[in-house]
Amino acid sequence: MSEIRKHYFLNEHCIIASERGKRPSDFKSAPAVEGQESGAGCFFCGGNESSTPPATAVYMQDMYRKGVVFADTDTERLGGWDMRCFPNLFPAVSPECVEGGDLLACGYGFHEIIVESPQHGMSLSRLDDEKMKLLMRVYRDRVMFYQSQEDIKFVSLFKNWGKKAGASLTHSHSQLVGLPLVPSVMNRELFTIKNALTCPYCDIVDTESGGERELARNGHFIAIAPYCSMTPFEIWILPLEHISHIEAFDDSMLNSLASILKEMLARLGTALSDPPYNYMFHQMLDRDYHFNLRIQPALATIAGFEKNTGIYINSVVPEQVGTFI
Amino acid sequence: MSEIRKHYFLNEHCIIASERGKRPSDFKSAPAVEGQESGAGCFFCGGNESSTPPATAVYMQDMYRKGVVFADTDTERLGGWDMRCFPNLFPAVSPECVEGGDLLACGYGFHEIIVESPQHGMSLSRLDDEKMKLLMRVYRDRVMFYQSQEDIKFVSLFKNWGKKAGASLTHSHSQLVGLPLVPSVMNRELFTIKNALTCPYCDIVDTESGGERELARNGHFIAIAPYCSMTPFEIWILPLEHISHIEAFDDSMLNSLASILKEMLARLGTALSDPPYNYMFHQMLDRDYHFNLRIQPALATIAGFEKNTGIYINSVVPEQVGTFI
Repeated sequence: MSEIRKHYFLNEHCIIASERGKRPSDFKSAPAVEGQESGAGCFFCGGNESSTPPATAVYMQDMYRKGVVFADTDTERLGGWDMRCFPNLFPAVSPECVEGGDLLACGYGFHEIIVESPQHGMSLSRLDDEKMKLLMRVYRDRVMFYQSQEDIKFVSLFKNWGKKAGASLTHSHSQLVGLPLVPSVMNRELFTIKNALTCPYCDIVDTESGGERELARNGHFIAIAPYCSMTPFEIWILPLEHISHIEAFDDSMLNSLASILKEMLARLGTALSDPPYNYMFHQMLDRDYHFNLRIQPALATIAGFEKNTGIYINSVVPEQVGTFI
Repeated sequence: MSEIRKHYFLNEHCIIASERGKRPSDFKSAPAVEGQESGAGCFFCGGNESSTPPATAVYMQDMYRKGVVFADTDTERLGGWDMRCFPNLFPAVSPECVEGGDLLACGYGFHEIIVESPQHGMSLSRLDDEKMKLLMRVYRDRVMFYQSQEDIKFVSLFKNWGKKAGASLTHSHSQLVGLPLVPSVMNRELFTIKNALTCPYCDIVDTESGGERELARNGHFIAIAPYCSMTPFEIWILPLEHISHIEAFDDSMLNSLASILKEMLARLGTALSDPPYNYMFHQMLDRDYHFNLRIQPALATIAGFEKNTGIYINSVVPEQVGTFI
């Protein structure tokens, strides 16, 4: 028997239809990213810096500890980096608007690639703990850099891992898109939060703490399988405290986020044999919101029913995720 | 350069980023459905009726002309059919609710398969014209049957063609899901329509008629590449008249719909080498709405950016669709 579930606080629904016949082992597939051993000709590998546009930020862990971040110049590309950020060569949006032009009509915005390791075969679930902590700082820095650009209203930070999750290159990387508008999905959440007596996400933290949908917890964060999960093995990571944006995360929080994110990716990777996945940062600067990071393994196809109704059919019961991963 | 476009009347956006490097020929791939010649062991093939639950409706064209529709009994399965409807063996929702139970909690609803031909290798773009007309009548009949069931508020009618579009079986079929709620995507449209001075879809018909986004037109329908297309080669088919639901389509309209739908599928099939696609019926019974049928080839991956923002990046300019297909 299936169940139609309502989202915690939005008027959205999902269908949990576990009898559609899937067991966790059915989701194991070929690893999301194949051919990891070979980096020949990879644009994102260490040593191939000249294959990309000049880096806007180059992170070397030792120098970052001293407060130093580098950047390429037009003529010089830096090597020896741990993480490297540069404009997407095929950007969805671009800052090159005609003077005084319509920001939407000219596709104004920024589209950046964040390469998380110079090594071709690296995946985040195997990234060294210190590097994972560095990555959270890179995320904060780069998001804040683009949030400060003129007319940027929202910065989307996300990762596509594996071809099925939309990654066109196999070398592990994240992406950031700065937009001149607030997406309507965020506006709908903001409207509900504004009109609620208590923060709906704080309520989720309270409700799910210690329950069967809690997957992990540390000093600052909780990871849950949301009640109305859109995809099999969806995971939300929420700060225990009501904080809107990564801007306000201190060192201790960034380290906690690195730790719980890596744990979740590693547990998914082990249980499902390195599945393709997306993760997305949901956050708002200067607005009352509650930061959340959503991990969605790309295991099911978004088909006609979902495109017709916006209702997702999910074959894994959220209460069972914790027993499987 | 890309362009951020707003939906005709909702606060939704898409990004048209044609320079992301794709030409129409890049979308050609292996045919959506392979191995069409072999129907061995296919549950949906003529002759294999016992592999499915008993048919709720069996259509034979000659008998349908006389107003007769058959159904299987528990013990007898009918052969010699042209189209055949039966409950999905792995339903997303089911009518077996506990007496007086919560309709959502028990996953109340109906989930039906509509097999469009007894022949394994058939695709809709090659279906005989008379059969295509029959299919529109089957759609109307089955949608109306489920709309009349107790507590059914919305009937989703859609087709998944090809694995990438979510079809788990290769034999061509449509699906119908009757739900005890109106999906919020429909509610948002209804709200806007209710508060508009003129029907936004009627406005679309006016605006797009004769323009560069018009793809086809006949006595009752227009096919367009919508201004804010979510996917490459998205197509909307709209009645010229303000009609909310297929219930109100007369014979002439059903024939026109069959003709324009087949033409669009055939043109997509030729231009893109039988791409995987979904099509979805957007309609509302007993509410003020404007019927529309959306075809979305499943050529792009819905990745982290789309999941974060609800904004789709589309690499094909809608104005160019007509020159390509």
